[in-house]
Amino acid sequence: MEDVLIVYKEKPELNDPILIEGLPGVGNVGKLAAEHLVDQLKGMKFVDIYSKYFPPQVLVDDSGIVKLVNNEMYYVKRDGVKRDLVVLIGDYQGLTPDGQYELADRILRMAKELGVEMTFTLGGYGLGKLIEQPRVLGAVTDEDLIPDMKDLGVTFSKGEPGSGIVGASGLLLGLGKVYGMRSVCLMGETSGYFVDPKAAQAVLEVLSKVLDVRLDFSDLEEKAEQIDQLTSKLKETEPQQEPRKEDLGYIG
Amino acid sequence: MEDVLIVYKEKPELNDPILIEGLPGVGNVGKLAAEHLVDQLKGMKFVDIYSKYFPPQVLVDDSGIVKLVNNEMYYVKRDGVKRDLVVLIGDYQGLTPDGQYELADRILRMAKELGVEMTFTLGGYGLGKLIEQPRVLGAVTDEDLIPDMKDLGVTFSKGEPGSGIVGASGLLLGLGKVYGMRSVCLMGETSGYFVDPKAAQAVLEVLSKVLDVRLDFSDLEEKAEQIDQLTSKLKETEPQQEPRKEDLGYIG
Amino acid sequence: MEDVLIVYKEKPELNDPILIEGLPGVGNVGKLAAEHLVDQLKGMKFVDIYSKYFPPQVLVDDSGIVKLVNNEMYYVKRDGVKRDLVVLIGDYQGLTPDGQYELADRILRMAKELGVEMTFTLGGYGLGKLIEQPRVLGAVTDEDLIPDMKDLGVTFSKGEPGSGIVGASGLLLGLGKVYGMRSVCLMGETSGYFVDPKAAQAVLEVLSKVLDVRLDFSDLEEKAEQIDQLTSKLKETEPQQEPRKEDLGYIG
Amino acid sequence: MEDVLIVYKEKPELNDPILIEGLPGVGNVGKLAAEHLVDQLKGMKFVDIYSKYFPPQVLVDDSGIVKLVNNEMYYVKRDGVKRDLVVLIGDYQGLTPDGQYELADRILRMAKELGVEMTFTLGGYGLGKLIEQPRVLGAVTDEDLIPDMKDLGVTFSKGEPGSGIVGASGLLLGLGKVYGMRSVCLMGETSGYFVDPKAAQAVLEVLSKVLDVRLDFSDLEEKAEQIDQLTSKLKETEPQQEPRKEDLGYIG
Repeated sequence: MEDVLIVYKEKPELNDPILIEGLPGVGNVGKLAAEHLVDQLKGMKFVDIYSKYFPPQVLVDDSGIVKLVNNEMYYVKRDGVKRDLVVLIGDYQGLTPDGQYELADRILRMAKELGVEMTFTLGGYGLGKLIEQPRVLGAVTDEDLIPDMKDLGVTFSKGEPGSGIVGASGLLLGLGKVYGMRSVCLMGETSGYFVDPKAAQAVLEVLSKVLDVRLDFSDLEEKAEQIDQLTSKLKETEPQQEPRKEDLGYIG
Repeated sequence: MEDVLIVYKEKPELNDPILIEGLPGVGNVGKLAAEHLVDQLKGMKFVDIYSKYFPPQVLVDDSGIVKLVNNEMYYVKRDGVKRDLVVLIGDYQGLTPDGQYELADRILRMAKELGVEMTFTLGGYGLGKLIEQPRVLGAVTDEDLIPDMKDLGVTFSKGEPGSGIVGASGLLLGLGKVYGMRSVCLMGETSGYFVDPKAAQAVLEVLSKVLDVRLDFSDLEEKAEQIDQLTSKLKETEPQQEPRKEDLGYIG
Repeated sequence: MEDVLIVYKEKPELNDPILIEGLPGVGNVGKLAAEHLVDQLKGMKFVDIYSKYFPPQVLVDDSGIVKLVNNEMYYVKRDGVKRDLVVLIGDYQGLTPDGQYELADRILRMAKELGVEMTFTLGGYGLGKLIEQPRVLGAVTDEDLIPDMKDLGVTFSKGEPGSGIVGASGLLLGLGKVYGMRSVCLMGETSGYFVDPKAAQAVLEVLSKVLDVRLDFSDLEEKAEQIDQLTSKLKETEPQQEPRKEDLGYIG
Repeated sequence: MEDVLIVYKEKPELNDPILIEGLPGVGNVGKLAAEHLVDQLKGMKFVDIYSKYFPPQVLVDDSGIVKLVNNEMYYVKRDGVKRDLVVLIGDYQGLTPDGQYELADRILRMAKELGVEMTFTLGGYGLGKLIEQPRVLGAVTDEDLIPDMKDLGVTFSKGEPGSGIVGASGLLLGLGKVYGMRSVCLMGETSGYFVDPKAAQAVLEVLSKVLDVRLDFSDLEEKAEQIDQLTSKLKETEPQQEPRKEDLGYIG
């Protein structure tokens, strides 16, 4: 079979679109943020991406219907003045390093075909400790992208993230740069212990200004509250849990 | 060498055949069930499937003769009115995720060539605890397949299996769906600690109604009794054993 | 680069040659035996086999000169009446299952080109305990090969080796059988804890009768004595060591 | 995507160039040495090597700009009499054995295109204990290279390195030898516990004589002093730390 199997439902004509990536990772920050964006902006799915670099697994929905794990792209058409959006979400990232590269390469080629020249990748920055007010850290392909991001409250901090950015959020920037594409990675600070809707909201607050969209965060706030209740219970009843080493790095 | 090496002994002409898969997995439920079916219906082997995605291993029979580990397909011709059967059994599933995909892809292509439009995959659903009366859980590619399965006693239960279906039983459904094939996965509940002929029988009781065949279960019942004796001895002499984490998921 | 890089020094014309394989494995029985055979029969190296399935490693000889790890084939020409020999030895087996298959496939193709129709693979059968008089177990591709082997003292024992034969010694038989080649695997019983020249000698005693050659075993006997001294010292000074699980299987 | 993606900035015309490799490894000896050489000789970067065999990762510099992890080559032109230099440095070695082979193969082909007939690979030889005066061990592709190296103080010692040389430093020699290229590996002795500028200096002291260049070592000496202070503090405050097994081998 093909390493990456791309099944289009539709090939949309888009106005100078921006690609936004949010795949599973630390605290599922990017995934939560991108899915929320698709929900709020009523994105239309136009392509399924299957691959032997994903797990050999189907998901089963509540009525018992299976779906092969995949990545998906949604488009959001806007008023013809604002730039259109393409949002990449999915069940998994590639399982192996070479799978990550193959998938990033294919996604960048698809993006180019759609006319994408600018990408935002969304992720979490794992701190290994609980955090009240998550900052949003930034990384870019081109220096001239920094000032605008700083104006929107994004932190560019020497030595953070110290070990670089691992996974799709990093690779789409890095490989995209080799291919001549401009990109920004937005990383919401997170403990890395739980899925983190609060970090996702922090990332989306920046992104909504970039994209000039209004987002209702009540869903994410509700989820965040549920998780806050869980974690405060944990703090009461259990000794401080030791962070696992793999939670501490950034996997975007 | 070819990634997957297919050696036909015969290319049968089949009447609207149904594919039935039973490869090793949790409790070896699918393997036991599919092998029992081949035995009872006197299936004819018509193809050997070798692959570099299987272990580099030969099995040695009681007289000392080797056989390279493989997957095999058997056909069962019926009266020309009832649909014929193709049964896939084997020593192993693919060792790696990409191997699983390559093998599933090849098997689906072979099935299509044989005229298969409907597939049943058989597996175990690991519960991590001993169980008296195993239910048979179902998952399907298409919603309209559910009512008939329910009528035959298959359980469709929200949130089960929660983590989806991993391995050949899931992939043949999921990839088959992408290729436009209809399938049902039947999963017999099992502890996952032992090979489980009782769960295999539960699965076959459903399948025998679907296929309109009569099966003699005395072999499986005998094996189940032997295992029951073993497990009751274990319960007497040893403390309750802790389930290993990997026993708890479903690997089809 | 090519997955397997074959560098011929010479392409010998051989008289109905027999292939003999002895690569590293349990107790290094096969490797010791095949290297001893090459030494004693003054085999001529005619081909180097390099591969990305071997470790990325060079060996350094006593004067400081490197050699990329590889497999090698030697030929032994005989009197024109007895069949000539091709002996395969090497530093490593393939590191991955698919690498094992690719290498076995290439070696079988090379063997066919050389006119080989009969193969002997040599290995150890790990028992997980010390053993005084190692038996030589056999496995074959074709039933009619068994009687002669039994006459030469080879044991064919129901259920041994129970888990089959893993690695090159098994794969050359199994894949060779698919390709229509006849083969015998000779396995010398060994603890699996040490390199085992005694097991290698047991295997060679059988093989020398098959090939009708005289071998001087004084080298192997000397090595065996050294190891006996080591192990008897260990038995005196240390508690019985626990066999590691991986020592118990057969890896040929 | 291509397995190895080579992006030239410039294709230099070089005078009988010598290739020098220093990639990450034990004590980062080779990397430290080669980077110091590039700094001191003001090497010009002329090619970026990206690969799916590297981690899917970007590094982020102090201002927040990303760079996809890679290997890079620099050239140093000299007076037209002395031979020019090509220096290979990078963030990572290939992650997998086959990736190591593919990368070494590509680098050797690139080197050949540039006219390289002689290679020096630089690495550390891990001893698993602290060491005051590191020796420089050598390994070569061709015996006639040894006398000159010995004259420059390189040690060729029977049985060292006992397990050969693993990784790029070994593979460029070994695979290069198969391709008919001449090479020397210089290994500075190191504990393997820390990055080791002292071992890097020892290696460069030999190499500077080979290349007839003058190098200022004050940078490396300063780094070495910092590390000496760290280690002496550790010795005071902590019990002797146990070497991890993987620190003891040589990974070049």
